[in-house]
Amino acid sequence: MIAPDPNPDLPRVRLLPKANARAIRHGFPWVYANELVTDRRTRALAPGALAVLEDSARTPMGVVAVNPVSRIMCRMLERDPNAQVDRAWLTARLSHALALRTQLYDAPFYRLVHAEGDGLPGVVIDRFGDTAVIQPNAAWAEARLEDLVAALVEVTGVSTVLKNAAGRTRALEGLDDVSAVLVGTAPQAPLPVPMNGATYMADLTGGQKTGLYYDQRPNHAFAARLTGKGTRVLDVFSHVGGFALAMLAAGAEHALAVDGSAPALELAAQGAAASGVADRFETRQGDAFDTLTALAEEGAQFDVVVCDPPAFAPNKQALEAGLRAYERIARLAATLVAPGGYLGLCSCSHAADLERFRASCTRGIGKAGRAGQLLQTGFAGPDHPQLPQLAETGYLKALFYRL
Amino acid sequence: MIAPDPNPDLPRVRLLPKANARAIRHGFPWVYANELVTDRRTRALAPGALAVLEDSARTPMGVVAVNPVSRIMCRMLERDPNAQVDRAWLTARLSHALALRTQLYDAPFYRLVHAEGDGLPGVVIDRFGDTAVIQPNAAWAEARLEDLVAALVEVTGVSTVLKNAAGRTRALEGLDDVSAVLVGTAPQAPLPVPMNGATYMADLTGGQKTGLYYDQRPNHAFAARLTGKGTRVLDVFSHVGGFALAMLAAGAEHALAVDGSAPALELAAQGAAASGVADRFETRQGDAFDTLTALAEEGAQFDVVVCDPPAFAPNKQALEAGLRAYERIARLAATLVAPGGYLGLCSCSHAADLERFRASCTRGIGKAGRAGQLLQTGFAGPDHPQLPQLAETGYLKALFYRL
Repeated sequence: MIAPDPNPDLPRVRLLPKANARAIRHGFPWVYANELVTDRRTRALAPGALAVLEDSARTPMGVVAVNPVSRIMCRMLERDPNAQVDRAWLTARLSHALALRTQLYDAPFYRLVHAEGDGLPGVVIDRFGDTAVIQPNAAWAEARLEDLVAALVEVTGVSTVLKNAAGRTRALEGLDDVSAVLVGTAPQAPLPVPMNGATYMADLTGGQKTGLYYDQRPNHAFAARLTGKGTRVLDVFSHVGGFALAMLAAGAEHALAVDGSAPALELAAQGAAASGVADRFETRQGDAFDTLTALAEEGAQFDVVVCDPPAFAPNKQALEAGLRAYERIARLAATLVAPGGYLGLCSCSHAADLERFRASCTRGIGKAGRAGQLLQTGFAGPDHPQLPQLAETGYLKALFYRL
Repeated sequence: MIAPDPNPDLPRVRLLPKANARAIRHGFPWVYANELVTDRRTRALAPGALAVLEDSARTPMGVVAVNPVSRIMCRMLERDPNAQVDRAWLTARLSHALALRTQLYDAPFYRLVHAEGDGLPGVVIDRFGDTAVIQPNAAWAEARLEDLVAALVEVTGVSTVLKNAAGRTRALEGLDDVSAVLVGTAPQAPLPVPMNGATYMADLTGGQKTGLYYDQRPNHAFAARLTGKGTRVLDVFSHVGGFALAMLAAGAEHALAVDGSAPALELAAQGAAASGVADRFETRQGDAFDTLTALAEEGAQFDVVVCDPPAFAPNKQALEAGLRAYERIARLAATLVAPGGYLGLCSCSHAADLERFRASCTRGIGKAGRAGQLLQTGFAGPDHPQLPQLAETGYLKALFYRL
């Protein structure tokens, strides 16, 4: 039952009759600027202000965060219009998020909050043991950062909280890009992160801020199953050694990590040392396309090749060019796979859906004169939950072929 | 290089100009009846006969198996038109299939051959230790069954080979439904199958032929990660205890398995005993919809509910009704999930693609007055490889929500 006048202290924002109220009722979490009555009062709200969202018949629908400067003008925080979105509410959301990760992982290294998927729109929090990195990528979170961080410390007990303001979506919310140390002191050295039997080094504050991504964890784990005695691995776009270290920890004989970033490869090498596999690990800095071509000219062959490139198709405009780039990567990489070997191809492009990405990969493999079996289709791990009403294939896709 | 007259002893079959030769060249493995020159000579070929496929310009494209009575009139066996498709060829294909499974699994319990995905069109072979069950669901395999089985014994060393002729596609190939013991003697009792830390009982020859499916293995494993001390599990359409036993082996406090088949539940109970979890395992025989409704009326609540129904949408005609059935299952099951608990929903319907199935599930959960996070999207395990040119989302989909 909705109280007669829920949250009387909060301003009201109202849907236009043309707005898709039904979708919002069914769980869609956003109201676009063109769906809202944007009178002077609404436009005057401070970015991140709370309000009660009403449908066009003035029936309260929930508590939203309003940002008059963003195309996503409202983000649903709570479907109960009577709810108090306060420090206790933040604590409850974070506790709920933590409970899932505690269930799933043995050690406190995971994405703790995955934005809408964890009921905290626009907020991303990654945890590295006693250190958390928060990305408040929506105005409401930026405006409540102090409360959010206090709740984070209370719920998790972390001693260090870093703010990462590099997210590209912050500009869309009218937010700056100034990162900061919010609690504790910045780590003076890369932090060791245990994952899939290996130890990765995460540089959270260094000049390069190479960070570490948790989303590939299950795909690293699958790649590790493809290794054994004598396995030679090529890990392209390796970053801090993502696939290579997991495969070395699983017993691969040798791994060559290729990346354009020297600092990332330096961290990969440190990770290899920390994982006790440095003697089987090698790096090569350079452009991935050039390096793949050069390796082919050298006649190199590997038992497992994995390519985890940056988003070639970050948006619809870049889709066609992006798909061609994925095809090219697949073609170049397939050439380097020994007969009966494995090829892992990843995409973190929102715009390239699973079907299109798979078609590009299969085409590229064919153009290399190879054919194969598709063994596995993987996505981001379960510490990256999706709001079902926003679910697409998911941005991250990993395909494993046997050639 | 193609020899001037490859495989001169084999008959020729020729594509019509309208056939999609390009798709076939790019790896599509089938030629439909209406794409082929079906002269009297071709129609007179024995079902399963080998032939050299030519394009409409008479360029050889490969060695195919022809079945004049099937809508899929040719199945590509080998893209090299000079290849000898003989006993040695079968041995090579089986060895290649075995190498993958040996890489992936510690024990010889897996799908050894997944038809087109393993380059043996229409042939399915499941391995249960020293026993193999073969489904020769295409005429060419039926015609070469003796060679195929001899190669299977040679490659794997199995001592028993059973023929399962119950596959519905056999009728489309003009094949009978007579199962048989081909090598060794039929097991006199259900076979224990180790998987995900549990022991399942597979009845391969009993009156009920409940068998065992390997495809859900990674999804069972994911469900097991959702269990812990005190976890109460409901496994609907449990068959021989698929999800329930894996979750009990992982430490769940209690599991209730529901299925319409008393023999399947009896095997599940035997599996629970073999897994050492019989004291935590309970079964209830009955219609799944009725039982879900009854449990709701009893006010039952579970920490994890998983529903793995038979294909509700086996074909396009059944799609709409099937999607409604998935939605209904989701709605009924969601009601039984304790707050913060997990819901696993599976589909093995070819016709219901991932997007549609997910929409039905999400809608059903909403109609139950619940909302949730989508944690995981899983498919069949890697012992069910796909031919990339035939890859769709895959028939098996498993979604895990947290409510």
